Amino acid sequence: MAKKTRRRSEKAGLPPGTLVHTGERPPEATVITVFEYGPDFYEERKPVRLEECFKPQPLQTVRWINIDGLADISVIEGIGRQFGVHPLILEDILSTGQRPKCDDSTSHLFVVFRMLQYIDATEAIQSEQVSILLGPGYVVSFQESVGDVFDPIREQIRTGRGRVRNTKADYLVYRLMDAVVDGYFLILEKLGERVEALEQEVIKEPSEETLNRIYALKRELIYLRKSVWPLRGVISQIEKTASPLITDTTEPYFRDVYDHTIQVMDSVDTFRDTVSGLLDIYLTSISNRLNAIMKVLTIITTIFIPLSFIASIYGMNFRYMPELEWRWGYPTVLGAMGTIFLGMLYFFKKNKWL
Amino acid sequence: MAKKTRRRSEKAGLPPGTLVHTGERPPEATVITVFEYGPDFYEERKPVRLEECFKPQPLQTVRWINIDGLADISVIEGIGRQFGVHPLILEDILSTGQRPKCDDSTSHLFVVFRMLQYIDATEAIQSEQVSILLGPGYVVSFQESVGDVFDPIREQIRTGRGRVRNTKADYLVYRLMDAVVDGYFLILEKLGERVEALEQEVIKEPSEETLNRIYALKRELIYLRKSVWPLRGVISQIEKTASPLITDTTEPYFRDVYDHTIQVMDSVDTFRDTVSGLLDIYLTSISNRLNAIMKVLTIITTIFIPLSFIASIYGMNFRYMPELEWRWGYPTVLGAMGTIFLGMLYFFKKNKWL
Amino acid sequence: MAKKTRRRSEKAGLPPGTLVHTGERPPEATVITVFEYGPDFYEERKPVRLEECFKPQPLQTVRWINIDGLADISVIEGIGRQFGVHPLILEDILSTGQRPKCDDSTSHLFVVFRMLQYIDATEAIQSEQVSILLGPGYVVSFQESVGDVFDPIREQIRTGRGRVRNTKADYLVYRLMDAVVDGYFLILEKLGERVEALEQEVIKEPSEETLNRIYALKRELIYLRKSVWPLRGVISQIEKTASPLITDTTEPYFRDVYDHTIQVMDSVDTFRDTVSGLLDIYLTSISNRLNAIMKVLTIITTIFIPLSFIASIYGMNFRYMPELEWRWGYPTVLGAMGTIFLGMLYFFKKNKWL
Amino acid sequence: MAKKTRRRSEKAGLPPGTLVHTGERPPEATVITVFEYGPDFYEERKPVRLEECFKPQPLQTVRWINIDGLADISVIEGIGRQFGVHPLILEDILSTGQRPKCDDSTSHLFVVFRMLQYIDATEAIQSEQVSILLGPGYVVSFQESVGDVFDPIREQIRTGRGRVRNTKADYLVYRLMDAVVDGYFLILEKLGERVEALEQEVIKEPSEETLNRIYALKRELIYLRKSVWPLRGVISQIEKTASPLITDTTEPYFRDVYDHTIQVMDSVDTFRDTVSGLLDIYLTSISNRLNAIMKVLTIITTIFIPLSFIASIYGMNFRYMPELEWRWGYPTVLGAMGTIFLGMLYFFKKNKWL
Amino acid sequence: MAKKTRRRSEKAGLPPGTLVHTGERPPEATVITVFEYGPDFYEERKPVRLEECFKPQPLQTVRWINIDGLADISVIEGIGRQFGVHPLILEDILSTGQRPKCDDSTSHLFVVFRMLQYIDATEAIQSEQVSILLGPGYVVSFQESVGDVFDPIREQIRTGRGRVRNTKADYLVYRLMDAVVDGYFLILEKLGERVEALEQEVIKEPSEETLNRIYALKRELIYLRKSVWPLRGVISQIEKTASPLITDTTEPYFRDVYDHTIQVMDSVDTFRDTVSGLLDIYLTSISNRLNAIMKVLTIITTIFIPLSFIASIYGMNFRYMPELEWRWGYPTVLGAMGTIFLGMLYFFKKNKWL
Repeated sequence: MAKKTRRRSEKAGLPPGTLVHTGERPPEATVITVFEYGPDFYEERKPVRLEECFKPQPLQTVRWINIDGLADISVIEGIGRQFGVHPLILEDILSTGQRPKCDDSTSHLFVVFRMLQYIDATEAIQSEQVSILLGPGYVVSFQESVGDVFDPIREQIRTGRGRVRNTKADYLVYRLMDAVVDGYFLILEKLGERVEALEQEVIKEPSEETLNRIYALKRELIYLRKSVWPLRGVISQIEKTASPLITDTTEPYFRDVYDHTIQVMDSVDTFRDTVSGLLDIYLTSISNRLNAIMKVLTIITTIFIPLSFIASIYGMNFRYMPELEWRWGYPTVLGAMGTIFLGMLYFFKKNKWL
Repeated sequence: MAKKTRRRSEKAGLPPGTLVHTGERPPEATVITVFEYGPDFYEERKPVRLEECFKPQPLQTVRWINIDGLADISVIEGIGRQFGVHPLILEDILSTGQRPKCDDSTSHLFVVFRMLQYIDATEAIQSEQVSILLGPGYVVSFQESVGDVFDPIREQIRTGRGRVRNTKADYLVYRLMDAVVDGYFLILEKLGERVEALEQEVIKEPSEETLNRIYALKRELIYLRKSVWPLRGVISQIEKTASPLITDTTEPYFRDVYDHTIQVMDSVDTFRDTVSGLLDIYLTSISNRLNAIMKVLTIITTIFIPLSFIASIYGMNFRYMPELEWRWGYPTVLGAMGTIFLGMLYFFKKNKWL
Repeated sequence: MAKKTRRRSEKAGLPPGTLVHTGERPPEATVITVFEYGPDFYEERKPVRLEECFKPQPLQTVRWINIDGLADISVIEGIGRQFGVHPLILEDILSTGQRPKCDDSTSHLFVVFRMLQYIDATEAIQSEQVSILLGPGYVVSFQESVGDVFDPIREQIRTGRGRVRNTKADYLVYRLMDAVVDGYFLILEKLGERVEALEQEVIKEPSEETLNRIYALKRELIYLRKSVWPLRGVISQIEKTASPLITDTTEPYFRDVYDHTIQVMDSVDTFRDTVSGLLDIYLTSISNRLNAIMKVLTIITTIFIPLSFIASIYGMNFRYMPELEWRWGYPTVLGAMGTIFLGMLYFFKKNKWL
Repeated sequence: MAKKTRRRSEKAGLPPGTLVHTGERPPEATVITVFEYGPDFYEERKPVRLEECFKPQPLQTVRWINIDGLADISVIEGIGRQFGVHPLILEDILSTGQRPKCDDSTSHLFVVFRMLQYIDATEAIQSEQVSILLGPGYVVSFQESVGDVFDPIREQIRTGRGRVRNTKADYLVYRLMDAVVDGYFLILEKLGERVEALEQEVIKEPSEETLNRIYALKRELIYLRKSVWPLRGVISQIEKTASPLITDTTEPYFRDVYDHTIQVMDSVDTFRDTVSGLLDIYLTSISNRLNAIMKVLTIITTIFIPLSFIASIYGMNFRYMPELEWRWGYPTVLGAMGTIFLGMLYFFKKNKWL
Repeated sequence: MAKKTRRRSEKAGLPPGTLVHTGERPPEATVITVFEYGPDFYEERKPVRLEECFKPQPLQTVRWINIDGLADISVIEGIGRQFGVHPLILEDILSTGQRPKCDDSTSHLFVVFRMLQYIDATEAIQSEQVSILLGPGYVVSFQESVGDVFDPIREQIRTGRGRVRNTKADYLVYRLMDAVVDGYFLILEKLGERVEALEQEVIKEPSEETLNRIYALKRELIYLRKSVWPLRGVISQIEKTASPLITDTTEPYFRDVYDHTIQVMDSVDTFRDTVSGLLDIYLTSISNRLNAIMKVLTIITTIFIPLSFIASIYGMNFRYMPELEWRWGYPTVLGAMGTIFLGMLYFFKKNKWL
């Protein structure tokens, strides 16, 4: 059933609601895990078949269905059928280049956003789409690949630490989003280190490579901004929703995540300003180097050209050049040349060229 | 009946409501096709005369009148008379340089926007105006020329695949707009490829042509932005309209197209940032090349000018120049020159000029 | 009664409501023409004295008083007295540097905006202030000088073509404003031609004049923007007014003018972006020319300086220079020089300097 | 009682409401003048002691207390006590670096803004804080120093010309603000003249001083913008206030001042755009000059270096140089040099370097 | 109990509400001081243990608990338990990189913002987080380290000067915030001095260091803006809150602080514009210096190259060079050289190169 990844544009013409995976990477194999918990118990099943996810569920418990890998489209279809999800939302889950957005229907709340990871080797940000479906008593989360970002939350469910076990499904959604936003700070730190390193490089020894590094950093910042900026609106929408799925006690938590995204935006903007400043310094250092080179050239040329001219005068072969016959002609000319030489040096010194 | 195309400004002075074609290209011959469908049947007539479009229509069916080519003004007038369309709207259909907009009157909803196509040969975006008139039970679409963008929709009506046959006329409007917006993604991909190619070119071998390419790309982006930006407002207006012509079930679909236009805008803005960055790199690479040239010049000049000066000293014709008579004068001078030469090289090496 | 034009600042200190003409040009002689029309008749008087404008008027007719030239302040005062116009509005009519604005009082609606004309000789935009006063059954329009922009409207009143004769006074206001906004498109076309011409010039043969042309064009665009931008708000205000003077049937027409002003703004902004791009290209072409010059200099210098140095070596007058006595000394040196010359050429070729 | 001026920061730590003068200039001696007027009479007292200002006042009259110079803090305190002014407002009057603002309490309306004057000698804008307190039947105006900007208003009160005598206190406030805003137009004209002069200078003979002039002008524009921008909000606030102190008949007057401030902002923004354009031209003219210099250098060097090389060839002292012995050797070489010289000239001519 | 400082990112994975100190600096030891005051009495205890802070409190008095240093997390926990503070707020107090924000719950109002200090030695702004918790009858303030900014307020409580003793707890909050905002003006003055110094430096003697100074100043301004901008929203939120904790009489005071933050923002923006202008001047002065250097080079080269060429002509060794034999050959050539020299000087003088 798994199809090869298509590009967004190849889907043009298909009727909306046709479930086809689109994205930059081929979809990974689908693995389903289920957590079910309440204040006094928890149950973990992994991996399960889809049907097992829909077993009747005790009142007041929360069921968390986590789906890693989007290759098996029948799973997405099954989830859609079971929970009455609009086909366009199923499409969004499979189109892994979505802009972060929130869809707030009567029966459930759907959020899609980007999880970012900094790959040290390539100095680039890798991104993965995370979709969350919140309904009464259940949460379905979709990831593009198996990851460990949600492991601390799983651990807390298992051990009963923290508040997860004692709260409703919306708190779990908050925890999942919070985990992703916390990851942004890690990226900020990595980028911050690169900004500082570039700062040192630009001031101390700018090379032609520096510009490419500034440019690459700028691109990462543009990318980060593009991912975080719409998330801010999404969380604000969740916080202000009238949906009964979001309880009053969870609202301050979403406001907290909201504050964090704003903090990330602030830092990104500060970095951008800083990087623009670096570019200015870099360009000026190039100009300064040119000036330095020109100075050397000018000083050397300006000193020796007149001296050479004098020498060439006395290299002429006129028969009647009285100076040539003088006893002290040669020393006199050498002396004159020395005087000019020292005069020039003094002139340059005075004008602060040396 | 077909008139020659006039420029927008030549129309100044005519009373409003005078139907005259204005636009950059001459209008093409008008061809009318009619689709009529309901859950259980469909009928296709092509080409038809205008009168055939107005035959009585069974309840609960949708009639789609598609008009390709705007040369026959009497057709536009006939449509206007039949459906009671305001003369200013008929004018908008014929003025093919319209800004995307939506007009929401009591009896129908009118949308005009731009269909874009990427012409590989000229590396330019070609644009065509599409107008859609939605009334109770009918949709009239106007295109400047016959095209195949709507063919998948026609095919789905014929085969009954997808939801078109089971929905009202507003869903057809959504499908038409969606088809056009899907085309934007194709253009984005083409531009994205050009951005990447330019990126390589700027870093590896920038030429004078590069700047013109950057500039041309920038122009295409400005053009794309200008076409898509107002469309966003238009779709938002449709989604939020109180008009009974837009049913509740179609609203999420329009929201989906809306999200797509925002995604297009996002990409356009990212491309613009990227292209600005390329310009910076290009300009810096020019400066760097100048620096490299100056370095060569300076090194050569700085090394040989003093040496030539020494040679010219001993080319003077003074009678009393004791060095000239010395047995080792010549080798000594050569040696001195070699020493200066090596000293200079060492100096440049130390200052990282070589 | 006519006074000399004062500058805006010279008016400081006068009590508000003092009617004094201010503006860049001296006011022209005042000429009054009156049109009176209804569905079945029309009457035209020209030139008339002010008193004739106030004759009783049949019900359901529209009276259009057109005043060209603002020299005769008593006319303005008379209009003000007759129609109960606030002194500040009379002041606005006479201060011909007004920002476009709309004043919506209970008894009438006042609009002031700028009519623009492109003067081919100077390649500059000339501007004139147009004020319109709309009351029940009458329209008073003020222009700085006699012009022919409104002639098509006059002709339609005379012949009864179009809808003017069958509509109320507010439709005439729309037609007057529409005529002025249509004039903006003419200016856009002229500026568009200049943008294209500059584009060619910048890419093909940029001269020092080019920069001044770019700068002049930029100024015209700033000026155009400054005139059109506030007009957009003014028309929007008219469209949304609750005043009974604007009838429901005329509202779509004002919306149409509104769309046109937005289209003008769009084009102006696109032109500005384009012109900024031209500036970048121009500046880069200057840098490229400098690079080309430096290359020539560097190549020539780098090739000949070492050769000259060799020649100057053998121009030294040392007694013991064995090479000078050699039979093949001269040809050997010439050969060495040739080899160096060719080596240099090869080096430059390899580095793509030639 | 007068204290030395403190800087804003030295006040840190004092309890709010402590009246201390802060500002850039030391406060001037306080002079109080009182105007009292109604439709049929007016009375002027000058200079008066503070107590005289609080004498009972006939109904329907307006009392205008004008306070020039803020040295005597007891006067400010007295005004505050008498009219029940909040201590923070008294502080604002004394802190002469206030941002324009409006405070609309139940018993009075307080406005503070900046009066600007153009000092021709220094080509700089000098600014003074004006505070106005409007209560039922009275206006208190505070200026930093005695000035003549309000003299025309005083004259109109004395002579009964204009509408001041027949209106309430709010009209006087309007007149005072209008007088200040009218002063802005004067400054605009002065700056406009400087912009034009700079335009000529930049195009005709840019010097190193030009840049400093552009920069100084830019600073004045920033300063002007900073003073006028918030005033716009302040006047809008007054116009829209629900306070009974602002009567309906005065509202259009405030709207008029509002329009004027917008006009000032428009001009300031246009000037800023123009000045940015000037900077571009200036920088380009520097580049062009560099290009011109480099061209001269290159042409001279490129022509003479090969010629000198040929001459140095025949200056070598080889014994066997057959050309030297030729009868026509010298003329031939001279001819060859001439040919090269002319060839070079032709080459430069063809490449448009000359 | 004190833990080592963690970075924000290391906290990822911990359940929210886990109290851990995060920030750039390690937390300082916690010191608690308590002020209790009413109109007629005041009591000061220092240092106290946490339990002493919660003793019953007479009606109508205000208790100010000041906590310096955040090392002792049990103190934060104790405060939270006693006053029923949400765990997320306790977290905010401990995460000392918070963006200024205000949390307005039913039982208390929480504000967090940044106190800034200018360190003369490093010419950098040092920042510290201040959190304030306002409840009925009590204020708890948290600082990162012991400071003296609030000492004037303490002194006024002790002596009964000012209004603090006669007002409610919200007035104390105002005083604390006002004290912090007053500190911003001090920083503005320091930065203003640096701007002025840089202005002199750039115009009089720009060096390579200047650019780094401009850049450093720009960074400080970005930092200041980032700290003050959100504070503006925070204070506006407090002013407009419906919370009964903020009394009507204190509202104008908060509006006053609000005005001050806007004034700070205004100044920061003006400084930024100024600094951008400085950068332009600096870059232009570099270009001008390059031009000056090139001029010297060009003049020297252009004068001497042709002269040297003439000399080298007569240094050729042709047997038949008639001029060499002429009696006046040498003086004639010297004269020709002098003429060329003077001609060149005249040419440069005429073209204003000298």
